[in-house]
Amino acid sequence: MSHNTFGHLFRLTTWGESHGPAIGCVIDGCPPGIALTEADIQIHLNKRRPGQSRYTTQRAELDNVKIMSGVFENDNGEQVTTGTPLALLIENLDQRSKDYGDIKNKFRPGHADYTYFSKYGIRDYRGGGRSSARETAMRVAAGAVARKVLLGVSIRGALVQIGPHKVDRENWSWSEVENNPFFSPDVKSVSLWADYLDQVRKAGSSVGAVIEVVAEGVPPGWGAPVYSKLDQELAAGLMSINAVKGVEIGDGFGVASLIGEESTDEIRNLNGRPHFTTNRAGGILGGISTGEPILARFVVKPTSSILTSRGTIDSCGKETNIFTKGRHDPCVGIRAVPVGEAMVALVLADHMLRHRGQVGC
Amino acid sequence: MSHNTFGHLFRLTTWGESHGPAIGCVIDGCPPGIALTEADIQIHLNKRRPGQSRYTTQRAELDNVKIMSGVFENDNGEQVTTGTPLALLIENLDQRSKDYGDIKNKFRPGHADYTYFSKYGIRDYRGGGRSSARETAMRVAAGAVARKVLLGVSIRGALVQIGPHKVDRENWSWSEVENNPFFSPDVKSVSLWADYLDQVRKAGSSVGAVIEVVAEGVPPGWGAPVYSKLDQELAAGLMSINAVKGVEIGDGFGVASLIGEESTDEIRNLNGRPHFTTNRAGGILGGISTGEPILARFVVKPTSSILTSRGTIDSCGKETNIFTKGRHDPCVGIRAVPVGEAMVALVLADHMLRHRGQVGC
Amino acid sequence: MSHNTFGHLFRLTTWGESHGPAIGCVIDGCPPGIALTEADIQIHLNKRRPGQSRYTTQRAELDNVKIMSGVFENDNGEQVTTGTPLALLIENLDQRSKDYGDIKNKFRPGHADYTYFSKYGIRDYRGGGRSSARETAMRVAAGAVARKVLLGVSIRGALVQIGPHKVDRENWSWSEVENNPFFSPDVKSVSLWADYLDQVRKAGSSVGAVIEVVAEGVPPGWGAPVYSKLDQELAAGLMSINAVKGVEIGDGFGVASLIGEESTDEIRNLNGRPHFTTNRAGGILGGISTGEPILARFVVKPTSSILTSRGTIDSCGKETNIFTKGRHDPCVGIRAVPVGEAMVALVLADHMLRHRGQVGC
Amino acid sequence: MSHNTFGHLFRLTTWGESHGPAIGCVIDGCPPGIALTEADIQIHLNKRRPGQSRYTTQRAELDNVKIMSGVFENDNGEQVTTGTPLALLIENLDQRSKDYGDIKNKFRPGHADYTYFSKYGIRDYRGGGRSSARETAMRVAAGAVARKVLLGVSIRGALVQIGPHKVDRENWSWSEVENNPFFSPDVKSVSLWADYLDQVRKAGSSVGAVIEVVAEGVPPGWGAPVYSKLDQELAAGLMSINAVKGVEIGDGFGVASLIGEESTDEIRNLNGRPHFTTNRAGGILGGISTGEPILARFVVKPTSSILTSRGTIDSCGKETNIFTKGRHDPCVGIRAVPVGEAMVALVLADHMLRHRGQVGC
Repeated sequence: MSHNTFGHLFRLTTWGESHGPAIGCVIDGCPPGIALTEADIQIHLNKRRPGQSRYTTQRAELDNVKIMSGVFENDNGEQVTTGTPLALLIENLDQRSKDYGDIKNKFRPGHADYTYFSKYGIRDYRGGGRSSARETAMRVAAGAVARKVLLGVSIRGALVQIGPHKVDRENWSWSEVENNPFFSPDVKSVSLWADYLDQVRKAGSSVGAVIEVVAEGVPPGWGAPVYSKLDQELAAGLMSINAVKGVEIGDGFGVASLIGEESTDEIRNLNGRPHFTTNRAGGILGGISTGEPILARFVVKPTSSILTSRGTIDSCGKETNIFTKGRHDPCVGIRAVPVGEAMVALVLADHMLRHRGQVGC
Repeated sequence: MSHNTFGHLFRLTTWGESHGPAIGCVIDGCPPGIALTEADIQIHLNKRRPGQSRYTTQRAELDNVKIMSGVFENDNGEQVTTGTPLALLIENLDQRSKDYGDIKNKFRPGHADYTYFSKYGIRDYRGGGRSSARETAMRVAAGAVARKVLLGVSIRGALVQIGPHKVDRENWSWSEVENNPFFSPDVKSVSLWADYLDQVRKAGSSVGAVIEVVAEGVPPGWGAPVYSKLDQELAAGLMSINAVKGVEIGDGFGVASLIGEESTDEIRNLNGRPHFTTNRAGGILGGISTGEPILARFVVKPTSSILTSRGTIDSCGKETNIFTKGRHDPCVGIRAVPVGEAMVALVLADHMLRHRGQVGC
Repeated sequence: MSHNTFGHLFRLTTWGESHGPAIGCVIDGCPPGIALTEADIQIHLNKRRPGQSRYTTQRAELDNVKIMSGVFENDNGEQVTTGTPLALLIENLDQRSKDYGDIKNKFRPGHADYTYFSKYGIRDYRGGGRSSARETAMRVAAGAVARKVLLGVSIRGALVQIGPHKVDRENWSWSEVENNPFFSPDVKSVSLWADYLDQVRKAGSSVGAVIEVVAEGVPPGWGAPVYSKLDQELAAGLMSINAVKGVEIGDGFGVASLIGEESTDEIRNLNGRPHFTTNRAGGILGGISTGEPILARFVVKPTSSILTSRGTIDSCGKETNIFTKGRHDPCVGIRAVPVGEAMVALVLADHMLRHRGQVGC
Repeated sequence: MSHNTFGHLFRLTTWGESHGPAIGCVIDGCPPGIALTEADIQIHLNKRRPGQSRYTTQRAELDNVKIMSGVFENDNGEQVTTGTPLALLIENLDQRSKDYGDIKNKFRPGHADYTYFSKYGIRDYRGGGRSSARETAMRVAAGAVARKVLLGVSIRGALVQIGPHKVDRENWSWSEVENNPFFSPDVKSVSLWADYLDQVRKAGSSVGAVIEVVAEGVPPGWGAPVYSKLDQELAAGLMSINAVKGVEIGDGFGVASLIGEESTDEIRNLNGRPHFTTNRAGGILGGISTGEPILARFVVKPTSSILTSRGTIDSCGKETNIFTKGRHDPCVGIRAVPVGEAMVALVLADHMLRHRGQVGC
């Protein structure tokens, strides 16, 4: 993990800006012999693609991914990974000629405009440049490859809160997640959220959201003390997603008000294998997986691209105001669901290989 | 960040087990010429040292640190860093000869016993071995060195919640933090927490806690997109602390129920310098510091070492029960305060050097 | 340095195969504000480009580089680096439809065919796939960027030996290097080498070569003990070039037969600055630059693509013979000159930033 | 590989100065369950220990190693690695109170005094501080652990040249290496070298040497393109040893004057397995092992600690002269033999684990 690279043995390096010619990534360290086509990746990209409902940005991007290297036909004529770097590329189609006048000279509050400029003395102001969430398309693409490495592991995400409205966990249904534009597991939340977001959108405003990702099928033993803990790297991966302000594992902040008798998951035998009767720990103890489902949650702030004028300064330091014209996302958290899944997949694939390296299969 | 190493340019590698002869660390990449004595480090270790009140473990460790390498006299006869590896060492004094019978053959639920054994096929069961929070002494020691690197930056932590009892932020006083055994910033919380913890201790139980760390004086521009974000690495650093289950930056999970107009900090001028009128972002936008105070919060679960018997299995897989005899900590979160400060210091020192490397002073 | 990534703060990641759609790279950690156009890079690529004389391969590649990300206009309308990842891309034009029959099923001896297959269980046999020296184009491109970072440092390479024929160092002229197709600094070697290589080429054979790279203007103090030594990383960078079998710094293997009085460079004052009267150490002591020119030398083996049949096995393990049809390079060492320069530039740029990070400007 | 850390999955971090209280190292990533005692390490340290013959320095160090962490008893009562960091420590006994007056204010030419001071603005002048070859004791110790990881791999080194005197390869006998104080494989060289070194020693001078290391039993497939090549990392590891100025793999610089027909090792079948009829490549093609013995060679310069006065400057920049009083090594190359073996072992152990991580067992 360093600047624009994530992971140790399964390593993702991304590049590209929101309005440059393309975005892309290099995945290094992928095991060889894994069947992989562009369609395998596209299916996940399509879940994140903008413009799919009125609740997400209307930017028209097909996000068609191309595999530029790292695959070849095996003896059966199947396209498989070769063990050398996978390079993926998505062209930016919707670089509409646009008046960036305001953004060019003013720092949008809540965005990275001021901090990038403070750091580098220059910034690519077109659509946020490198700080745009467009970068997360490559995370989703790489996550699709990571999933292929993680045989027997299922990774699923769901939106569990929009604004003040949480799902009712009694209603949780994974199959429902695929049926609504919010990735909600609670069918009853759908019309409520739809109405709420319509209001938010009409007000030119935005709201935050909470996403939960669950990984099932991870065997006990993945992860590593003490600075490569599985929960540590999940926290890093999820917190690195644009607009994320918090991460929880298992019961998360809820453990503060528990007593030890409540928070300690007991171990029993189930069908001859160790089994935890509860999973408040979220599948991780001492930074290493327990074999129970891994539970991670993260919060995404409301986008700062809103139609209300907000105070800011310009690049000369003069006070001014700004508001964001044009398309915007009332709840960017929705599209963060496949991104969160991807980051969990990347962390797990990396740890699977690292575990195998140190300890053997 | 890899296994037992934290950081990139300012790198901490720790070693040692709870009941081995010693614990230690190597700090690599420290700038040369920084005045550093054992006393500079000891002052921070003493804040974390066990046995200082009846609310923390009674293990009797002096935690006297020795600097084994990396310092030398400069021309003024002052001991300074040389730019080569600093090695620090603390001998384990309180390795009381003890009957580990129960722990030896049973996995303590809620601890890392089962996961270490699953991963490695062997574990050092004496006091948790490598998974013991004793390792955090070296974090505090290294954090003391990181503070020396961070001229002009102040890093302070406080306990803001024990069990269900939160501090009243209206009463916040940094000077009060030094005055009570809980690192509480709210004088009114002290007797309440004392009574509550006495109850918990008498019940042989334990509770969780929330810690907040604030770093002031960080200039705008530290941090790096997109996989070395400042908030990402703070999350990694804090989540790597034993028993931590969640991390927040700024308003954290609270942003879920905000609207964009509320969550977007406006920028104004104050005394000719950019200033954010609010700091819901916690001093970080796009992974890069804004110049405002950096606010991080993390939650520590109740220790699983309690006097109540809990179900578990033994190393043969047979169901059994266990409870933890002897000394224990009713609220391990208290001693996590200096550890959290140290992790923030380590992340900031690393990013200060990385920023200087890429961008110049 | 890890799989397909080179460097620490100035990091190069390359991807692509000889006969895929393109090759490319990502340069991460480049300082912002450096003027950079495609032409700045192209000028160096053109020195390496195949097909420029009858002494190098006739593969027709224009090697036109595109900058895909990481640059933007500054206030003066000049295109400069932004501090975010530079992505470079070169399309492969000359992917002539070809009968790979022989190469497909047989391991070319002296090439990486057998070892890639042993490692990965699959290989991209088209032109060597990832093991092709085509990858070195991206090194040269990245080296061009590194040179821009290294203000005041000059990095020049020359061919000093082809087969048994060494240059006469008495005749050394850097300006001559630009005048002949061999990058020879000795005008008298040119016709001799031309005749010799014509013979080699007609015989369908190949020969080895030795390249020397000199970096001037490096201040004292770059490099780092003890596992990031400047000479260590130069050795790594040069040995990573295809077909390289040895690396020397300064007097190299010649120091074996010297005595201490001969090999120890004395230090004097010259114009008020420290100066070494000789430079047998090649500008590096204890892994850190002395301020004298840095001298590195490396040897490239004769290409194994020759017209003489050689014994090998096929992918079923059966003994057979093979020889390489079509275009080939009688002395691949010639085109290694700009590649060697590039690797030296990459190592120095990385160490410049690392030094600045730890010690300050 | 970064500053004072070597390796990726099997990682060595060393610390300590020549005349500090101790030197030590941390080995991170070692597989668990490997039987390891201090005696296993000591046997290799004893080969490097100073003062064993009149041809090496008379510094009296026992170099008794202590294992401080990372081992524990398994169920059979055998001490094995636990998978957590191994910390090793050797106390410095012979820190004789000494007048460092001359060294304190003058830069010893040929040593790292001037470059360390240039870099850091301070240096520990006692015996070279961190730049002392004393650090290599920890490499040998870590190499002993690496050997334990490398089941079935034999790593042996020999001195093949002292000054101008090379061994006769016709006489090569590995068993002879153990019989003489020079690690010479050629019994006939022994008296010749003894006489020659006596002369050198009496003259207060020093000579260079060449060491060869051979690793047998490495399966095909270890190593990785393109910036983690096996030969690249061997070059890095060997060049990082004090006073090394060149590294060769296989035929090394000799390949310059070969033609392709000579340098290309043919592949045949031997007992149903692929076999190279020659091994000019030194067991590595395309950065990946071929299954043949890995051959590496490196050259060590004469130590600059000689009794002849040499010109230098003092810390004020004034010209002066210096010569080294007291004990010294006429041929430091001799003690570099076990160090070279250790570096080869470290590289191979790291690549074994990395290969297993990416590709599986």
